[in-house]
Amino acid sequence: MNKNVSTFIACEADYEEAEVVLFGVPFDGTTSFRPGTRFAMQAIRPDSYGLETYSPYLNADLEDYQIFDGGDLELPFGNTENVMEQIHQYCKNVLQANKKFYMVGGEHLVSLPAIQAAYEKYPDLHVIHLDAHTDLRDEYMGERLSHASVIRRCHDFLGDERIYQFGIRSGTKEEFEWANTHTHLEKFTLNTLQQTIEKLKEVPVYITIDLDILDPAFFAGTGTPEPGGITYRELLDAIQQFQTLQHIVSADVVELSPQYDPSGASTAMACKTIREMLLTLV
Amino acid sequence: MNKNVSTFIACEADYEEAEVVLFGVPFDGTTSFRPGTRFAMQAIRPDSYGLETYSPYLNADLEDYQIFDGGDLELPFGNTENVMEQIHQYCKNVLQANKKFYMVGGEHLVSLPAIQAAYEKYPDLHVIHLDAHTDLRDEYMGERLSHASVIRRCHDFLGDERIYQFGIRSGTKEEFEWANTHTHLEKFTLNTLQQTIEKLKEVPVYITIDLDILDPAFFAGTGTPEPGGITYRELLDAIQQFQTLQHIVSADVVELSPQYDPSGASTAMACKTIREMLLTLV
Amino acid sequence: MNKNVSTFIACEADYEEAEVVLFGVPFDGTTSFRPGTRFAMQAIRPDSYGLETYSPYLNADLEDYQIFDGGDLELPFGNTENVMEQIHQYCKNVLQANKKFYMVGGEHLVSLPAIQAAYEKYPDLHVIHLDAHTDLRDEYMGERLSHASVIRRCHDFLGDERIYQFGIRSGTKEEFEWANTHTHLEKFTLNTLQQTIEKLKEVPVYITIDLDILDPAFFAGTGTPEPGGITYRELLDAIQQFQTLQHIVSADVVELSPQYDPSGASTAMACKTIREMLLTLV
Amino acid sequence: MNKNVSTFIACEADYEEAEVVLFGVPFDGTTSFRPGTRFAMQAIRPDSYGLETYSPYLNADLEDYQIFDGGDLELPFGNTENVMEQIHQYCKNVLQANKKFYMVGGEHLVSLPAIQAAYEKYPDLHVIHLDAHTDLRDEYMGERLSHASVIRRCHDFLGDERIYQFGIRSGTKEEFEWANTHTHLEKFTLNTLQQTIEKLKEVPVYITIDLDILDPAFFAGTGTPEPGGITYRELLDAIQQFQTLQHIVSADVVELSPQYDPSGASTAMACKTIREMLLTLV
Amino acid sequence: MNKNVSTFIACEADYEEAEVVLFGVPFDGTTSFRPGTRFAMQAIRPDSYGLETYSPYLNADLEDYQIFDGGDLELPFGNTENVMEQIHQYCKNVLQANKKFYMVGGEHLVSLPAIQAAYEKYPDLHVIHLDAHTDLRDEYMGERLSHASVIRRCHDFLGDERIYQFGIRSGTKEEFEWANTHTHLEKFTLNTLQQTIEKLKEVPVYITIDLDILDPAFFAGTGTPEPGGITYRELLDAIQQFQTLQHIVSADVVELSPQYDPSGASTAMACKTIREMLLTLV
Amino acid sequence: MNKNVSTFIACEADYEEAEVVLFGVPFDGTTSFRPGTRFAMQAIRPDSYGLETYSPYLNADLEDYQIFDGGDLELPFGNTENVMEQIHQYCKNVLQANKKFYMVGGEHLVSLPAIQAAYEKYPDLHVIHLDAHTDLRDEYMGERLSHASVIRRCHDFLGDERIYQFGIRSGTKEEFEWANTHTHLEKFTLNTLQQTIEKLKEVPVYITIDLDILDPAFFAGTGTPEPGGITYRELLDAIQQFQTLQHIVSADVVELSPQYDPSGASTAMACKTIREMLLTLV
Repeated sequence: MNKNVSTFIACEADYEEAEVVLFGVPFDGTTSFRPGTRFAMQAIRPDSYGLETYSPYLNADLEDYQIFDGGDLELPFGNTENVMEQIHQYCKNVLQANKKFYMVGGEHLVSLPAIQAAYEKYPDLHVIHLDAHTDLRDEYMGERLSHASVIRRCHDFLGDERIYQFGIRSGTKEEFEWANTHTHLEKFTLNTLQQTIEKLKEVPVYITIDLDILDPAFFAGTGTPEPGGITYRELLDAIQQFQTLQHIVSADVVELSPQYDPSGASTAMACKTIREMLLTLV
Repeated sequence: MNKNVSTFIACEADYEEAEVVLFGVPFDGTTSFRPGTRFAMQAIRPDSYGLETYSPYLNADLEDYQIFDGGDLELPFGNTENVMEQIHQYCKNVLQANKKFYMVGGEHLVSLPAIQAAYEKYPDLHVIHLDAHTDLRDEYMGERLSHASVIRRCHDFLGDERIYQFGIRSGTKEEFEWANTHTHLEKFTLNTLQQTIEKLKEVPVYITIDLDILDPAFFAGTGTPEPGGITYRELLDAIQQFQTLQHIVSADVVELSPQYDPSGASTAMACKTIREMLLTLV
Repeated sequence: MNKNVSTFIACEADYEEAEVVLFGVPFDGTTSFRPGTRFAMQAIRPDSYGLETYSPYLNADLEDYQIFDGGDLELPFGNTENVMEQIHQYCKNVLQANKKFYMVGGEHLVSLPAIQAAYEKYPDLHVIHLDAHTDLRDEYMGERLSHASVIRRCHDFLGDERIYQFGIRSGTKEEFEWANTHTHLEKFTLNTLQQTIEKLKEVPVYITIDLDILDPAFFAGTGTPEPGGITYRELLDAIQQFQTLQHIVSADVVELSPQYDPSGASTAMACKTIREMLLTLV
Repeated sequence: MNKNVSTFIACEADYEEAEVVLFGVPFDGTTSFRPGTRFAMQAIRPDSYGLETYSPYLNADLEDYQIFDGGDLELPFGNTENVMEQIHQYCKNVLQANKKFYMVGGEHLVSLPAIQAAYEKYPDLHVIHLDAHTDLRDEYMGERLSHASVIRRCHDFLGDERIYQFGIRSGTKEEFEWANTHTHLEKFTLNTLQQTIEKLKEVPVYITIDLDILDPAFFAGTGTPEPGGITYRELLDAIQQFQTLQHIVSADVVELSPQYDPSGASTAMACKTIREMLLTLV
Repeated sequence: MNKNVSTFIACEADYEEAEVVLFGVPFDGTTSFRPGTRFAMQAIRPDSYGLETYSPYLNADLEDYQIFDGGDLELPFGNTENVMEQIHQYCKNVLQANKKFYMVGGEHLVSLPAIQAAYEKYPDLHVIHLDAHTDLRDEYMGERLSHASVIRRCHDFLGDERIYQFGIRSGTKEEFEWANTHTHLEKFTLNTLQQTIEKLKEVPVYITIDLDILDPAFFAGTGTPEPGGITYRELLDAIQQFQTLQHIVSADVVELSPQYDPSGASTAMACKTIREMLLTLV
Repeated sequence: MNKNVSTFIACEADYEEAEVVLFGVPFDGTTSFRPGTRFAMQAIRPDSYGLETYSPYLNADLEDYQIFDGGDLELPFGNTENVMEQIHQYCKNVLQANKKFYMVGGEHLVSLPAIQAAYEKYPDLHVIHLDAHTDLRDEYMGERLSHASVIRRCHDFLGDERIYQFGIRSGTKEEFEWANTHTHLEKFTLNTLQQTIEKLKEVPVYITIDLDILDPAFFAGTGTPEPGGITYRELLDAIQQFQTLQHIVSADVVELSPQYDPSGASTAMACKTIREMLLTLV
């Protein structure tokens, strides 16, 4: 007669023995258009049981690895700075225990403290950023901590030559121009991902995937659908290419709002992406 | 860094110390019209956190009692007899440990093995049955184990003078006629509930609530909505009347299909009913 | 190996032997706000099998009567006059064969040709009209054939002292004032229905029920929800009172838009209303 | 060829000539459970055209009065204090121009700066508060500015004997106990509203209606449905009673989340409530 | 304190100064299957604010141009000829003022009076038609003015050699055969679009896009989904090819029914298409 | 005045004259995740009228052939073996009458008795199986009759070298390994379909299509969405390739759960697939 433990499929290791720590951050406090990413993990855990634990893409099985599901952070509402601090502390603890984390958002702003924690441990950190949006605004409606400025805030400490952006198809003219001199930004597609991965093969890399890089056909469950994105097979190919990277230090996936896709297909896609990325991290 | 435990709000006791054991039975295998009660508990647990633990109706608080949430039974699909046996065994175990159970369906057929287990411990068992439907068919499309015959199957071992039915507004002519000589059946309303409770004050009583006794206005999240039912305030009143019963041995609530009510109001209503009934059982 | 016949539950008589002819009119061509009543019958037929054929309210069973389900009229789009003519002809044919019809809309305008056909056979016709809206506009956006003017158009040939309106809670000031001298209009409730029925006991009566007389709590599946209506039990009571009428010549029910109520409760309510009214007509 | 002006039905006066200023506050930043009240006004304006401008309850017509629809405030995300300040300033401006405002939320916290502005002009202000929830927490997850503490914050400046709460059916035990000595709180119903209105007939009164006072049957479109509430007719009756108050200084209505009620019935109910309250304010 | 003006993002010019006039036609009166295009513009305007004003495809920004949003035409219901006349007059006025219009439907029939107005000003007009359906019926259920015959009606005055159809994958055998001798029709794809554009480079061209040319994967929000269509990237490519045309006189986009895609992705796609086409027209 | 016959579009032949018998099997009794395939045919029949009867892909028209729609089997709930027997008998009858059947599920397990009936008549039977899932488990939660083991059960009687699987992207490691020696399994794609068809050109072939072979972008209406699948155009191409097969003995399509795709696009896709396959069978 045990308590009712709820985890992502096959992530049943204890913390101590785990290589990778999966956790959720149900935060959508700066979302300006349609909120709902706070519900992502609540939908993902039960729906993950519709997946198999085995990946025919990577020929690997979640059941062969030690992964801990730490549940979701409990966050106050309306106090963004406090939320940033809690995420930062959690990530720092995991990295200090010589584990990797895999964080599931929430909105994209949650990546900021996570990347910062990774940067503190790995000063030579590089970031691979898959997204529909530039996220390079210096501020948004007067706020510097915003989903629309998360990568710009990361640049504040990472500096030039560290951020590689792919699939970007939305932003202000100023953001695209700023990117020309401060990040590597590929518009619309993933065509240069392979060569980037070759270049970053041996350095510490953090991978942040905003699922809205996908076309809304493949991923309708998001607050700001931006048509014209990649297919899910292209994302699966990208993840297979990530196997070449020798030092992925941690990673995240953000921006599922499950309630906007009542079919559950978007949640299933997030689950499959999490399985493939967990098998990439171990 | 603990595992992610998921319970109904404030039901965080360990099994050993618990007075009441809450558990779910995600079974809808004989549902003939629209399935979905298998998803009830999956919706109820997270949404229970939208409730307060305190009941201003009963002036009592879940946090003051020891209740264990045992999670959901894991059931095979397509083998009704096996499912019945598993439920029966679970209920028997709980009763033998001198605890009460509160079972959340699933379809109404899950009440059969639960009532049987209660009857085995309390041969003088009486049943209070709130429902829109008679559930007195001897068989349904050739099957004797069916949601439409669950109370008839209970009568098989309980016999006459033990079953009190309220709120019934749907059934075949034959069922209503059969009830005339074998159960106490009140059509449409709860008007005679108070006097029944007086009569049963000192005997062992099992309470089974099919939430479709409520009008679909109040409870749209069900497979077979039957207009013309009671209001939620009438159900709250009934639960307050149950306080008079001195020996409620266990109880259940069935037939929430959360996906048919996208507003979440039906799930909220199931949550509130569970809170009130748990506070009645302790 | 017979063809796949689809009827309302238990309405399986042939036309020749039938007392009552049930048929659908999937027309919503003048609906100004949210269309969708064209889908009513398509939802009602399959969902009627969630009902029992027996009514515990009237102690009568559909299976004991001969009712023919004639399917739905096939109508052109965008030509309101042609639609009116087709309905009129169908109703006339049924009445000439000494049968009654029970028509399921569609928007309320479909009642106009049906009432006209009834009036042609019974010049002393009286109309009982249950609705949230007055429907007494002389024209609506320049059109005289509109859901908002259907009862006014009936008055054109019926004249004063023939129309009894109940439950009305929406209209222009002019419509309410016009009603003062031309119809019997009870605002908000059904309190005077019993005395009206006494008065009309022996004359030919046509009953038209716009389901939006119900509060949207009980009937959300409608294009123009108007809060503050009656409960479904009040409607059931009204139907029981109709048993007193000795000469109901035909009747209709209109304005279900099933897609606005994804729970199916509104469709279930329409089904139950149809069962009770069919048992009233036979 | 004019620009596309969008207003609540018949609220087409210019600001200068208006008696009452209607405006929206799309803020749900402290909502802890299910967000979405930010979308209320966006749904209300177009759906208001499904209403008539005439009220048969009050025998009055919106078209006979001068009401200005000021649109919605443009608010930053994630900075609650800034939002409070903007609302406060707007309300102050309206009151200084000797007009009344009618504010549509948004979550309940938006009432705090509005009531404060009213209090600054009318130090003898009394508040009538209709709600399912006490809203009397001193803090919620560490935050003092929260939807769960809005009435407590109003008490900070109003003090005892000024707040009258009705329909309350959810809160912590501590909140109910605190209310015993600091506010007038009626649990569950509106039974004492009439006598309160008599008492407050001549003093300045602000009316704040959290629509979740209604049972979710009548109002499913809300983030935290709390079963067991009042009917819409009871709310209409309350509004009719408000006619007795001689000095309503301003008012608000909050907590519609239209997306949780896909039928549109909740939005229709909000629209009708706004019409009745506007006709009460003029 | 200005009135609440509602426009498509960045279309805030006054009529006089505008180059392009955007307007909506909420008409779905001949829709035979599932109505709802009347709601397109009501969804598009607010959701357009989820877009950026800058197009990285065309490297152009809506804010750099003068575009007027004229709101929606107010149309009677059930009188198709009257609707045709109103649209025709509006388009004629815009063209006479030496502006271009960009019309947003509504069903496809609204293109008929718009193309006629363009033809009256530019007798050498050619039409590029992107669609899943031929729209070449001579009549549909007896009506000559129908969404299914709109292009056939345009041929009545344009004649042969003027209409170029792309992406067509549904129609009767007769329609496909008729097209062989009267229009240029490419089945399924856009492969010949580039060469058509070369050919029409210098003549006046009207572009009508029925969004159901897209596969329902990319555009589920439509009344008659027809699987097997193009991707959204193919449509974006087509729009980039349109830049070659030197004399686009006006254009339209039709057949969004937002309510069939609760994710909002179809509406987002319509918004993005409008932005790209507006930047093409200026 | 005929009864209301409901068929798939243009399938109006009588049984005796029919070449092909279309019928539905509303069974989802072993579905472990999300049920709902029981509703497939109920959605398909009315929505088929949104299609044309003519296929521009095959240049053929349903109206030129004799196809009988036999309605749906009436099945008990909770007794899988009984269901299997009924399907088997129906298929056997059709084949004995020298007709072909086209069966519409229901879950994939319904293919087992159908393939068995075909095998009994054609002992040299080969099976082409399009699916996302291997369906090769020997048992699933203790049950040997399960949607997850249907192809394994077919192998029990067909043996090696008879089953060709395409598009498979989900299964356990054991299933993929078992397939290596017992079936021809192509992972992810249809690349080898053409050469398989060449090989099977002259032998009896049964084609079973689980629509979840499609990516959820194209087919969201399914219980277990598995991202990474084929496009609908690829499926249309496959069907065109099937024209080469000289001896297709019967076929089926399974796993539409229409309620998970409220847009209707998945149902439309099932309808179009049925049209193309019926035109392939005749």
